[in-house]
Amino acid sequence: MYYAAPIARLVEELGRLPGVGPKTAQRLAFHLLFAPREEVERLARAMLDAKEQVRHCSTCWNLTDADPCEICANPHRDGSLVCVVEEPRDVVAMEKTREFHGRYHVLQGAISPLEGVGPEKLRIKELLSRLGGGEVKEVILATNPDVEGEATALYLARLLKPLGVRVTRIARGLPEGGDLDYVDEITLSRALEGRREV
Amino acid sequence: MYYAAPIARLVEELGRLPGVGPKTAQRLAFHLLFAPREEVERLARAMLDAKEQVRHCSTCWNLTDADPCEICANPHRDGSLVCVVEEPRDVVAMEKTREFHGRYHVLQGAISPLEGVGPEKLRIKELLSRLGGGEVKEVILATNPDVEGEATALYLARLLKPLGVRVTRIARGLPEGGDLDYVDEITLSRALEGRREV
Repeated sequence: MYYAAPIARLVEELGRLPGVGPKTAQRLAFHLLFAPREEVERLARAMLDAKEQVRHCSTCWNLTDADPCEICANPHRDGSLVCVVEEPRDVVAMEKTREFHGRYHVLQGAISPLEGVGPEKLRIKELLSRLGGGEVKEVILATNPDVEGEATALYLARLLKPLGVRVTRIARGLPEGGDLDYVDEITLSRALEGRREV
Repeated sequence: MYYAAPIARLVEELGRLPGVGPKTAQRLAFHLLFAPREEVERLARAMLDAKEQVRHCSTCWNLTDADPCEICANPHRDGSLVCVVEEPRDVVAMEKTREFHGRYHVLQGAISPLEGVGPEKLRIKELLSRLGGGEVKEVILATNPDVEGEATALYLARLLKPLGVRVTRIARGLPEGGDLDYVDEITLSRALEGRREV
């Protein structure tokens, strides 16, 4: 018996969160025990509300509390441009750039034979049916710059090009603020490959 | 607008937790959104229950859901031995050793003039009144091995010794598995100072 039962249960439940080991779980539990009651209630409420209210947008498959989501419903977003990403968090990353004014399509993952994720498990059928409408002129493939993301982009490019839509892939190259000397070889060769006239 | 409102609120509330930055808050939020509903409800419930049911033991001031706490109420624990610690988490650490079978007294902090914590803010009066009963024969000072913990231990030693109770301090020395070469000088001098006949 290290903890009173309600503390033990709280430590255990917190320890199920990703990246939270036993020590962190204990620290968080004691923080919550000493935090103002309202703060704890607000957090618990936010968790339950999010779980209750958030679903997938039936158009773009991003997470949303309204269907269609705010981006799909916004008439100021360019419907001719669709950016394909793997996960909802990638939409967040894209939105933070404030550079993209089209719409999204969230695949819900990437093709990964090792993890048993084939194209049929992703929202690819739904992407195809969006393209059927004829409004979309360009599909930007913004899957991750890793093996699975590249495979998915390649698969989609082959699938979409015959449909007469423009298919592009976000650029690979040196990250901002990086040091040429410290960058890995693959990134550097991609940067060289993707060089542009200045 | 990066997130749907319920997600934004969840990320914000998670971001208030200690050691949880914006990126971790986002990761935790998406984890919870994709986690089974029961898991999220169990976590929310555990947080609210802990907040609701946990209070301080009126004898030892540890956290507990019953008063007196399980340790104070346990007749197999040695009531003649009281281990004084700063925080409830220190009780957890001591219990994990399985070496201590006495009872505890949780000060709720340490003397820290810099943070405006004087002896009157700690549960020292309550410790004195426990000693008044005459059952306690030895007080083990197990405050942290840092400036505040040492100051608190010194203060308590001066206060308690005249009462005729035995007052001891947990040993300072080399941590298990450490390397003499890498240990800081203060630890090494304490280890030297505390040397014992073998």
